[in-house]
Amino acid sequence: MKKADIGLIGLAVMGENLALNMESKGFTVAVFNRTTDKVKTFTESRAKGKNIIGCYDLPSLVACLDRPRRVMLMVKAGEPVDALIESLLPLLSPGDVIIDGGNAHFPDTIRRTKYVESKGLLYVGTGVSGGEEGALNGPAMMPGGSKDAWPLVRPIFQAICAKAPDGAPCCDWVGPDGAGHFVKMVHNGIEYGDMQLICECYQMMRDGLGMKSGEIGDVFARWNETELSSYLIGITADILRYKDENGETTVEHILDRAGQKGTGKWTAVSALDEGVPLTLIGEAVFARCLSSMKDERVQASQLYSRQIPPFEGDKDAFLEQLRRALYAGKLVSYAQGFALMREAAKTYGWTLDYGAIADMWRGGCIIRSAFLGEIRAAFRRDLDLPNLLLDPHFKSSIDDALPAWREIAAYAVKTGVPMPAVTSALSYFDGYTTASLPANLLQAQRDYFGAHTYERIDQPRSVFFHTNWTGRGGNTAAETYTV
Amino acid sequence: MKKADIGLIGLAVMGENLALNMESKGFTVAVFNRTTDKVKTFTESRAKGKNIIGCYDLPSLVACLDRPRRVMLMVKAGEPVDALIESLLPLLSPGDVIIDGGNAHFPDTIRRTKYVESKGLLYVGTGVSGGEEGALNGPAMMPGGSKDAWPLVRPIFQAICAKAPDGAPCCDWVGPDGAGHFVKMVHNGIEYGDMQLICECYQMMRDGLGMKSGEIGDVFARWNETELSSYLIGITADILRYKDENGETTVEHILDRAGQKGTGKWTAVSALDEGVPLTLIGEAVFARCLSSMKDERVQASQLYSRQIPPFEGDKDAFLEQLRRALYAGKLVSYAQGFALMREAAKTYGWTLDYGAIADMWRGGCIIRSAFLGEIRAAFRRDLDLPNLLLDPHFKSSIDDALPAWREIAAYAVKTGVPMPAVTSALSYFDGYTTASLPANLLQAQRDYFGAHTYERIDQPRSVFFHTNWTGRGGNTAAETYTV
Repeated sequence: MKKADIGLIGLAVMGENLALNMESKGFTVAVFNRTTDKVKTFTESRAKGKNIIGCYDLPSLVACLDRPRRVMLMVKAGEPVDALIESLLPLLSPGDVIIDGGNAHFPDTIRRTKYVESKGLLYVGTGVSGGEEGALNGPAMMPGGSKDAWPLVRPIFQAICAKAPDGAPCCDWVGPDGAGHFVKMVHNGIEYGDMQLICECYQMMRDGLGMKSGEIGDVFARWNETELSSYLIGITADILRYKDENGETTVEHILDRAGQKGTGKWTAVSALDEGVPLTLIGEAVFARCLSSMKDERVQASQLYSRQIPPFEGDKDAFLEQLRRALYAGKLVSYAQGFALMREAAKTYGWTLDYGAIADMWRGGCIIRSAFLGEIRAAFRRDLDLPNLLLDPHFKSSIDDALPAWREIAAYAVKTGVPMPAVTSALSYFDGYTTASLPANLLQAQRDYFGAHTYERIDQPRSVFFHTNWTGRGGNTAAETYTV
Repeated sequence: MKKADIGLIGLAVMGENLALNMESKGFTVAVFNRTTDKVKTFTESRAKGKNIIGCYDLPSLVACLDRPRRVMLMVKAGEPVDALIESLLPLLSPGDVIIDGGNAHFPDTIRRTKYVESKGLLYVGTGVSGGEEGALNGPAMMPGGSKDAWPLVRPIFQAICAKAPDGAPCCDWVGPDGAGHFVKMVHNGIEYGDMQLICECYQMMRDGLGMKSGEIGDVFARWNETELSSYLIGITADILRYKDENGETTVEHILDRAGQKGTGKWTAVSALDEGVPLTLIGEAVFARCLSSMKDERVQASQLYSRQIPPFEGDKDAFLEQLRRALYAGKLVSYAQGFALMREAAKTYGWTLDYGAIADMWRGGCIIRSAFLGEIRAAFRRDLDLPNLLLDPHFKSSIDDALPAWREIAAYAVKTGVPMPAVTSALSYFDGYTTASLPANLLQAQRDYFGAHTYERIDQPRSVFFHTNWTGRGGNTAAETYTV
């Protein structure tokens, strides 16, 4: 029997589709699933007649594989990955590669890379984006880990991955240990932000302008012809115009309670750890939390019984302002996300190619968009660009959008249509472009009550002063009391 | 020689002042510091002639103490606490109490309580708030840990702590293991929020209205006579009017670069973990991060060269609107903070008395205010109040403030004075009081690209549906791919 090119463990939607994708590109795939019924079902249905070998235990899977062996895990992130690594290690040989294609938390991938390498094997943690359809037809893939594994997995990954409009594979080596999963995490955080921005525009059209779903879908379809062109805008148009067999618009029947707890949250926590303002994604994660408090919101809405005033004005002009606000918000979100990657790269000792990352995201993944081409161009202009808002092209985009953005944010806060991401992005832009923030007062407060000391604008940095504001405090410096 | 009532380790500003406070209440205090020069300096200066016994090693300190021994650590949070616990355990006896009065992260206190109890001793993790002056004259104290330790530390803690205006001690038992440090952490997070809100009002007056520091200080002094009356508003007035020996206003010379990395960040992370929207404190933490990017902000401000338009209107009316916006923002911040405590209490198995917590914060600590009396009253009216915004008194406060709050937020976003906390609080209020958020679209998107399934408004909760939106995807449910 022909040996398999790769073993794939975990036959939920992503695993099945990846296996089929690999097979369609000429690779033979051995598959295994803990609940072995799934192996049977899969090989007798979607995988029937294909070069996919069903295995019913791990030793059989490993025995099927060509050397050096490549085993890819598509299982639930967390403990199951560690358990599988432990089970696989005794079955594999030095030079074999274990690949985790799930949404692992990047510190786990840092740890696992070290551990697996210490056993003489290679480890790859790869982000795989594109959902069900991407996995089948070409996902964006963000691999990191043992550098020596790249030549071994590259032929498969770059064969199965999505291709950007110019044909470039949406998969390239990201960096050591957890770099791939980190970049995938930020991708997902950005996805949270994009989805939240779209939802806010939808809500403004629905509740602020009183538009119907189909009409809103048409607006998104038109926006998809502009610089907002992207997968998420496209599917939003589809969804809003989708009718069930009874002719009813499905989206209107869906409960407004969204899940979170995964990579969006991790992205926000990572930003807090790195001290990078990631306000938009933070608001997007919290917006999901708020959505899940449905019963409390219904209660609060009855108590306050707010009314959104009817829109009076030029609707088309307003929609164009809304489109620009969405674009500007999106730009801030990406600016924050890329700034986070810069800081994390310093912390973890990675050298990341931000242009290449934008490039990889241009196809296959959920956030694929024309916009990412502009980001790639910005980093090609300046490899060390500290923030996308400082790029001349984006500067002029912001200049164009700014009046509209302010109008939309002001209309939202005046009428009570919640647009946390759009307004938070604007606050960030306004803060980022303000030379003097009020943190001088904040530092004075901290010095007042905690003797935290402060720097002065008329003295060199890192020279610290303390004022005895009350005339009462002592002169002992604060060392243990950190607020 | 008379035995000491308590041993105190760590003579930075908080430790020194706490020791002096205890001594002033009739307790004999043995003190030790790793750098023993500090022991000498302290006992020969501020502690001279007082019942404070300088010790130069741990065994001497322990030998000084009455039984059961009470040893309080006022050292840097983290590893030094664990190291001291290890050093103390062999010197102490069953029934003795180790107290950590630093800003420990509550999971550490959970762990340490278990560990110290496993050695037959008692452990207390206590929040101590009030900074330098509070420590000396009466801090708010939030102890948790081994319940049996409370009778042993209570006489000292309730003697040295602050007293609320009605004479009640600002110290009560919070709950098991890490509950005290958790509540202190949320206190600090709320402090971040309060400070940020004040800073935003300062910036609006300074940059939006063109007011001078002294004039702004006078406004805060007037606000301190209203329902905003609080320690932080009071010191803000002091700071803005404080002139140095040359007659210059000190605050104008302070660099606008604020530190963070401590308890504010932890509070935001905890909110993300619990899935509780804590947007205002999140924005406050990120605002500090943004402030620290001084050079980048200066660069961005030059690139964009935005101008805040001059204010035209009734200044006094605007200032009153600003005051109301500050009040409303503050209310949202506390509503979010108390909601976080409710969820964490469920997660960690604590029974928290929210009225008592508000009560404890009324004196001594940085966020002490008249407002906390109102919060206490709200929880006395309804012990199980899910959110302060649902309380009838606060509902009417919001109704009063809402038009002003919207005006201020709209003015900020239109003119470009960053008010991230004020606007974020308003977005939260608007979202919280909205029965139908746009998360129905978000759930449809997740189902479209990831087969995540959704609930319907016309079907029971927790029944999940999947739509084959494209007519292409398979029917395999997503189990491993969580966005």
